[in-house]
Amino acid sequence: MSQKSDPGKAGRRTVFFVSDQTGVTAETLGRSLLTQFEAHDFDQVTLPFIDSVDKADEVVRRINAVAAEEGRRPIVFSTLVQDELRGRFAGVSGLFLDFFDAFLSPLEQELQTRSSHTAGRAHGMNDSGAYDQRIAATDFALRNDDGSRTADYGEADVILIGVSRSGKTPTCLYLALAYGVLAANYPLSEDELESGMLPKILEPHRAKLYGLTISAERLQQIRRERRPAGRYSSAEQVRFELRGAEALFRRYQIPCVDTTSVSIEEIASRILTGTGIERRTRP
Amino acid sequence: MSQKSDPGKAGRRTVFFVSDQTGVTAETLGRSLLTQFEAHDFDQVTLPFIDSVDKADEVVRRINAVAAEEGRRPIVFSTLVQDELRGRFAGVSGLFLDFFDAFLSPLEQELQTRSSHTAGRAHGMNDSGAYDQRIAATDFALRNDDGSRTADYGEADVILIGVSRSGKTPTCLYLALAYGVLAANYPLSEDELESGMLPKILEPHRAKLYGLTISAERLQQIRRERRPAGRYSSAEQVRFELRGAEALFRRYQIPCVDTTSVSIEEIASRILTGTGIERRTRP
Repeated sequence: MSQKSDPGKAGRRTVFFVSDQTGVTAETLGRSLLTQFEAHDFDQVTLPFIDSVDKADEVVRRINAVAAEEGRRPIVFSTLVQDELRGRFAGVSGLFLDFFDAFLSPLEQELQTRSSHTAGRAHGMNDSGAYDQRIAATDFALRNDDGSRTADYGEADVILIGVSRSGKTPTCLYLALAYGVLAANYPLSEDELESGMLPKILEPHRAKLYGLTISAERLQQIRRERRPAGRYSSAEQVRFELRGAEALFRRYQIPCVDTTSVSIEEIASRILTGTGIERRTRP
Repeated sequence: MSQKSDPGKAGRRTVFFVSDQTGVTAETLGRSLLTQFEAHDFDQVTLPFIDSVDKADEVVRRINAVAAEEGRRPIVFSTLVQDELRGRFAGVSGLFLDFFDAFLSPLEQELQTRSSHTAGRAHGMNDSGAYDQRIAATDFALRNDDGSRTADYGEADVILIGVSRSGKTPTCLYLALAYGVLAANYPLSEDELESGMLPKILEPHRAKLYGLTISAERLQQIRRERRPAGRYSSAEQVRFELRGAEALFRRYQIPCVDTTSVSIEEIASRILTGTGIERRTRP
């Protein structure tokens, strides 16, 4: 799980993400910070499930070895809930930034409560109700993925519409897996785009519709990867479909998001913000 | 996007997640910390895309209004990259914890570089290469979801095997969406479980196999939600299938993870850690 950086770039530094659980939180937070230092290049190593003094000491030895070898202190982002484990890093040859260390004290003061400092509770998704909701939502997204089946649209929280390869399927799956939201998707066919009329089957669900759009250049690029030749990925076809979809969104006042240069997380977040749909579970 | 807490519980407090982008990082950080204060109950409000002075001032007014109404200072977790926007919160009636504020300075010192302090770069997933990889991996997971098609197994990074409803599909989709990893899944049939032999089709791919297991009680509960009656969700059937799967994993030394009480993120992370598969993209 180590990513090698370009050795020609200045300011190379090894970064460790250390966690008593999966490391996802330490990675998310650490990377947000690293993106602010573009001139540097970072070799990233994730060390999850560091949940004992022995494992912590082993990590300290590894960090010290890298420091000695590279002649530069590694940067260590950690989410270690237990004071005892964090304490093992006191003399480490690295910049040690622990997220609990920084924020637990002001929170304890504000809430006038000692925190429980207990590992295993920090990521909050371990209850089976939330798991069930996410699984049920994933099943829903898979069952309602291509518009061939619309019987469940009454249950849906949101129905994404757009042309082929505008990002509907991954967005529905992400809404399900991350938030437990019931998301269906309906691909707009050529006939529907030509007529400019909202498909009859969608009429009763107008309040749940959300459009995805994308630039013609990007869509053509994505379609070409799927089918290099033919009308499907031709510039004219792509432009015709996108013009039709956007006209439909405008005519029926369907809110929409441009997926051209945003991440799946951001598309999902914009849809939830735009619709006010409650996040059933948390990523 | 507000979650109401139980008003009977002591120590109720409103929590705001404020971000110039989706709010996912602020939520991740804040919730990790809040799980350490179990005696308290938190009403959570996410305010994403706060990317101008006007919007920041509006948020400050809103927080101050909640403080006045509840007679208690809200807690504010923020990820605002721009100094100017963070500055607007200087006099807010709340405990203001900004993630960049806390960590950028030590990093700047360590790297001997001023950070770029630029919004829009903090979440790092906006490059189209990573997006393409995740979409391609999602397509792969969908195409290789039920074992009916095995032609692509050569390309797979990992092939999950297990009984029906052990968590294979959501895990494959999460591995694809979050990490761009090519994950196929193969459900073990009753005949295969009875024979105790690894299916022939999986033989050439033994090194890529990863097993999912689950407790009999939990599996029965999940299957009952799908089909309340019948053999599929009976205690004997569930136990028979799980015994068979676990015997198979042991006999062929297939690494496996118990999905009973862990989140999808954690299952995915354990598989990546266990196999050493490179994370192609980052959540």
